[in-house]
Amino acid sequence: MTEEESERLLPISNPATEANVQSRLFQKYKIKSYLIKKFPIIQWLPNYRWQYFQCDMIAGITVAMTVIPQGLAYAKIAGLLPQYGLYSAFMGCFVYSIFGTAKDITLGPTAIMSLMTASFGSSPIQNDPTYALILTFIGGFVQLLMGLFNLGFLIRFISAPVLSAFTTAAAITIGFTQVKNILGLKNIPKHFLECVYYTFAKLGETNVWDLILGIFCIIVLHMIKKLRTINWDDEGESITLSQKIARKFLWILGTAANSVVVIGAAGIAAAIISVYPDKAMFTLTGEIQSGLPPFKIPKFIISHGNITQSTAEIFSNIGPGFFIIPFIGIIETIAIGKSFARKNCYKLDATQEFVALGVANIFSSFVSSYPIAGSFSRTAVNSQSSVKTPAGGIITGTVVIIALILLTPAFKYIPNAALAAIIMSAVLQMVDFKIIQRLWNIQKVDFFIYILTLIGSFALGVEYGILIGIGLSLFPLLYPLSQPDIQIQDSSIPVIWLELGLQFPASEYFEDRIIDLLNTSGRPQAVIIDCKNVFRLDYTAVKTIEKIITHLEHHNISLVLTGLKANEKNKLTEASISPLQFSSSVESAIEQISKE
Amino acid sequence: MTEEESERLLPISNPATEANVQSRLFQKYKIKSYLIKKFPIIQWLPNYRWQYFQCDMIAGITVAMTVIPQGLAYAKIAGLLPQYGLYSAFMGCFVYSIFGTAKDITLGPTAIMSLMTASFGSSPIQNDPTYALILTFIGGFVQLLMGLFNLGFLIRFISAPVLSAFTTAAAITIGFTQVKNILGLKNIPKHFLECVYYTFAKLGETNVWDLILGIFCIIVLHMIKKLRTINWDDEGESITLSQKIARKFLWILGTAANSVVVIGAAGIAAAIISVYPDKAMFTLTGEIQSGLPPFKIPKFIISHGNITQSTAEIFSNIGPGFFIIPFIGIIETIAIGKSFARKNCYKLDATQEFVALGVANIFSSFVSSYPIAGSFSRTAVNSQSSVKTPAGGIITGTVVIIALILLTPAFKYIPNAALAAIIMSAVLQMVDFKIIQRLWNIQKVDFFIYILTLIGSFALGVEYGILIGIGLSLFPLLYPLSQPDIQIQDSSIPVIWLELGLQFPASEYFEDRIIDLLNTSGRPQAVIIDCKNVFRLDYTAVKTIEKIITHLEHHNISLVLTGLKANEKNKLTEASISPLQFSSSVESAIEQISKE
Repeated sequence: MTEEESERLLPISNPATEANVQSRLFQKYKIKSYLIKKFPIIQWLPNYRWQYFQCDMIAGITVAMTVIPQGLAYAKIAGLLPQYGLYSAFMGCFVYSIFGTAKDITLGPTAIMSLMTASFGSSPIQNDPTYALILTFIGGFVQLLMGLFNLGFLIRFISAPVLSAFTTAAAITIGFTQVKNILGLKNIPKHFLECVYYTFAKLGETNVWDLILGIFCIIVLHMIKKLRTINWDDEGESITLSQKIARKFLWILGTAANSVVVIGAAGIAAAIISVYPDKAMFTLTGEIQSGLPPFKIPKFIISHGNITQSTAEIFSNIGPGFFIIPFIGIIETIAIGKSFARKNCYKLDATQEFVALGVANIFSSFVSSYPIAGSFSRTAVNSQSSVKTPAGGIITGTVVIIALILLTPAFKYIPNAALAAIIMSAVLQMVDFKIIQRLWNIQKVDFFIYILTLIGSFALGVEYGILIGIGLSLFPLLYPLSQPDIQIQDSSIPVIWLELGLQFPASEYFEDRIIDLLNTSGRPQAVIIDCKNVFRLDYTAVKTIEKIITHLEHHNISLVLTGLKANEKNKLTEASISPLQFSSSVESAIEQISKE
Repeated sequence: MTEEESERLLPISNPATEANVQSRLFQKYKIKSYLIKKFPIIQWLPNYRWQYFQCDMIAGITVAMTVIPQGLAYAKIAGLLPQYGLYSAFMGCFVYSIFGTAKDITLGPTAIMSLMTASFGSSPIQNDPTYALILTFIGGFVQLLMGLFNLGFLIRFISAPVLSAFTTAAAITIGFTQVKNILGLKNIPKHFLECVYYTFAKLGETNVWDLILGIFCIIVLHMIKKLRTINWDDEGESITLSQKIARKFLWILGTAANSVVVIGAAGIAAAIISVYPDKAMFTLTGEIQSGLPPFKIPKFIISHGNITQSTAEIFSNIGPGFFIIPFIGIIETIAIGKSFARKNCYKLDATQEFVALGVANIFSSFVSSYPIAGSFSRTAVNSQSSVKTPAGGIITGTVVIIALILLTPAFKYIPNAALAAIIMSAVLQMVDFKIIQRLWNIQKVDFFIYILTLIGSFALGVEYGILIGIGLSLFPLLYPLSQPDIQIQDSSIPVIWLELGLQFPASEYFEDRIIDLLNTSGRPQAVIIDCKNVFRLDYTAVKTIEKIITHLEHHNISLVLTGLKANEKNKLTEASISPLQFSSSVESAIEQISKE
C-alpha cells in the first residue's frame, strides 16, 4: 500500500485500523521530518530544477574564482604551503551541500581561521601540516558534539564588543603581516609586535619590484571591485541585449576581481621571467605540488629526522586550541549565516549548522585541510551571484579540484605581493573603529572590555585576546550572582527573602549576611527565610543552610524555611539536616512561631 | 590640643568652631579607623598584656615545632631543597602579625601550595628556585590587587564540590608521591598516573630499612597524636598539680608530634651511622645550607650553564599559574580563617586577608620563599594552644630563624621516610569520599562535576582539574542567562515581558524569539516590550534592540518600549536608533497604539 493509497483508504477503514494507519503515518512523517532536519538536502534535491542549476553554476564558478587565489594566500598565513589552501577549499563545500541549512554559506579557508591555525597549530617542523590537520579533525568533533549536545548557547557568551575587538585585532594582525610581502622582506618574526618592529627596522631591505607590483595590485583590485557596484543611471529604461551583456561582464569582472588580479600579476611575472630568465625580480609563490591530496585520516605523531613528538605532546601543545578554534569557526559561520538568512528571508537552524560545520571539518581533515569555516567575502559573492541551493557548493568544490589537477603549474608564477594585496583588501573591511565612539557613548564598561581585548590581542596574540575579552565580559554577569539582592525585614522575627534563589556563588554571602544580622539585631526567637523563588538548591547551598541552622541552633534560634518546593525540601532531608522546620508561607510561619 | 582636651572643650565652643572641631575629630576618627582596618596591629598592640604573651609564646613555639619538620618535607613536594621550606616559614608570620585580622591563622608552606608550585614553578634546572620565587612575588601582587580592587567575590565561584574534589585529588596526589619515599625508590616520574605506575613497577627495588622506618614513623605519629585527645574520666574532680603537669606534658607531646617523630628518627639514624659509618641504610635528607637566606628581590631570568631563559619565556611558561596559585592560596587561607573565626567568635575581614596574604607573599619572596598560604593543621595547633593575638606568629617566625641558624647541621640526619610519614599523616585528613554519597543523593549535577574534577585532576594534574571543575559548575549558572524566561502575550498587539532584564548572552535568543513570534502570529500592528525589569542594557543588547526595530520596520510594525529607566533610554538615543517609541506602562502603550 503506497502512502497515497493509505491516505485515500482512511475515511472508510474501521477505527482500530485507522488509528494504526495514522500512527504509522505519523511515525513515517516524524522520521521524514527528522531526516529532513538532519539532511536538509532531502528537502531541496527532489525539487531541483534546471533554472536553479544555471544560477548555482554561475555562483559556484564565481565563488571558486574567489576561493582559489584566497586559498593560496591564506595557507601562507596559516604557516602552510599554498596548496593546503586549495585542499581546504573543496570538501567543506561538498559536505555542506548535504548538511547545511543556508543556501548562501560557503565553507573553506578564511583569514581568521588561518591566523588561528598559525597560533595553535604551528609544528616544530617547517611547513609540516600535522598540527593543522589534527586541529581540523578534533575541532570538527568538538563542533559536532556541541551540536548534538545542544551546547550552542555557549557562543552567546561572546558579546558584540569582544567579537568586534577580536575581528579588528585579527584583521590588523593579518593585514600588517602582509606588509612584509608587499615590501619583499625576509625573516620577519610571527609575533605581532615583533613583526611590526622588524618590518620597520628592515625597511631598507625593501624589494622595489615587489613594492611596485604590490601597490599596483592593491589599486587595480580596488578599482575592479568598484565595477560590481556601478549604478547605471538608466534604471527602468529598456537597454539593448549587448548593453546587458556588457554590464553583466563588468559585474562578473568585478566579482572575480581576485582572480583577475592574480592572473594579471602572474602573467606579468611569467612574461618578465621568459625575457630575463636569470633575474629574480619578484618574490614568487614557487612550485606547487600538483594533483589531489591523499584521502586518509590525519596522523597523530610527528617523526621527522631527530624531531619526534608523541600524540600526548602534540595534544598538550595544542591545549586550549581544541576548544577555541572550533568555537571561533562556529561563531564566524553562524554570524555570517544569520545575516544572510535574515536578508534573504529564510531560517537558519543553528544546531544543524554546528553539525554541518563539524562533519565538514572532520571530512575535510581526511583531505589535508586545515580548519575551515564560513567565509564572509565568499558568502557575499555567492549571495550576490543569486545562488539558489547549496548545490552551488558542489560546483565550487568541483572547480577547485579541477584547478588542483590542471592549473597548479601556472600558480608558481603568482607573485607574493599579489596574494598579499588580495589578503589586505579582504581583511581591511573587517576593521571597525567606529564602534569605539559608540561604545564610549552607550556603555563605558563595554568600551574598556573592547580596549583591553584589543591590547591583549596585540600583546599576547588574538587567541588570548578573545579569552581575556570573554573573561572580562563575564564579570558584570557573575558579580550579581555572587552578591544577590537579599531583602531583610528586621523585626522581632526577622524575615529574609531570597529574590534570586540560592546558588553556590551566593551561599557564602548569604551566610555572612545572616550572621551579621544576628550581630546587629540581637537574639531573636526565630528567623524566617522565604524560599518561594528558590528553584534549584545546589550542594553548596544545602551545606550553607546546614551551617546556618547549626549556627542558629548554637544561639537557640530556630530557623523556618517557607514556600520551599517539594523537590528542594527532599534535598535538605536527604542531607539529614536537623532540626528542619518548613512552612507554606511567611504568615503561617509567624503564626506557628508565636504559638510556641 | 590633645584629642581629650578638644573633646572636653566641645560643649562651650561657638557653633562655627564646634563644626570645625567636629569635622576635624571626624576626620581624625575616620583616619584612625581606616588605619586600624589596614593595620590591625594598631588595634591589639596597645592593649597587649603579659598574660597574652605567655599564651602567644607557648602557641608560637608549638606551631614552630610543627612548621619546621613540615617545611623540610613540603619543600621536597615543591621540587626545592629542604631549606626553602624554612625560608618560607618565617616572613609570612611576621607580616601577618601586622596585617592579619585572625589571631589563629598562621601562614607558611602548605601541602597544596607545594604541589601547585611543583606544577607551575618547576625550573628547567634541578633545585633552581627562580620560578618558585617569581610565583611568590607576582602571586603576592595579584592577591594584593584582588584585595584593593574588591575582587574577593571571585573566590565564591568555586563551589563546595569542586573545592572538595580538588582538595581530595591534591591530597591523594601528594600522599601517593610519598609512597616512593617510604619505599626508598629512586627516579619516579612526577606526573600522577606515571608515578603510580612506576611505584608499582619498581616495588622490587624497595629499600627495606626505609620501609621499616617509614611504617614505624606512621604508627608512632598516629599514636602520639592521640595523646592530644585523651579524654580524662575525672572531669570536674580536683586533680593534683603533678597530674596537671603530666597531662599538659602529654598534650604538648601530642601537639608537637611531628617534631617528636622527626627528632626520634633522626636520632636513630645518627646513632646507626656513628656505629656503621660506611653503610647507608636509610635515605637521608642530606646536608642543608645553614643560615638565613639573603634579603633580595627575586631575579627574573635564568642563566645557568647553557640554559638561558628570558623573563618573557619564564612568564609564558608559568602563564595561568600567576592566577591559579594566588587564587588557591586565598581560598585556603580564607576557608581556614572563616572556620576558626566562627569557632572563636570573632569576625574575619576577607578583603584585609587578601591584602595581608598578598603583602606576606611579596615580602616572603625577598627571603627566597615559595608561595605561602594559611595552613590548616598549624592554624588548628595555634588555636588549640590558646593563642591570644597575631603576636604568636612573631614567636613562630623567630624560632624558625633560630633553627635556620643553629639547627641545620642536625637536619641532615632526618630520614626521608620520616618526612614522608609526616606528609602522609597531614594530607590523609584532607581526603573526603563521604561527600560522594551525599552529592549523589542531594544533587546529581554536583556529583558529576565532582567526579569529572577528580578525573581531570588525576589525568591532567590538579591545576587543570580545578579549572575543569570551575568551568563545569558555571554551566548551570550561565545557561539561564543565555536562555531567560521571556513571557509573551500573543494577542493582537503582542506584549513581551523581559523578566530578567536583557544582557548580551540573552540578546540573540531574544531576537530569535521575536522573529519566531512574527512568523507564527502573522503581522500585528505593533509589538510592546515591557522593560521595567531592565536595569542594565549593555552594548550588545542595544544593538539587538536596533536590529529588532529595523526588522519590524521592514514589515511595517512599530515597536514600543515600556517602563524603561531614563539612563537606559539615553543609551538607545545615544545609539541614534530610530524610530524609538517609549511609553511609561504597557496599558498606556496599548492605548497609544489603538489611537493611531
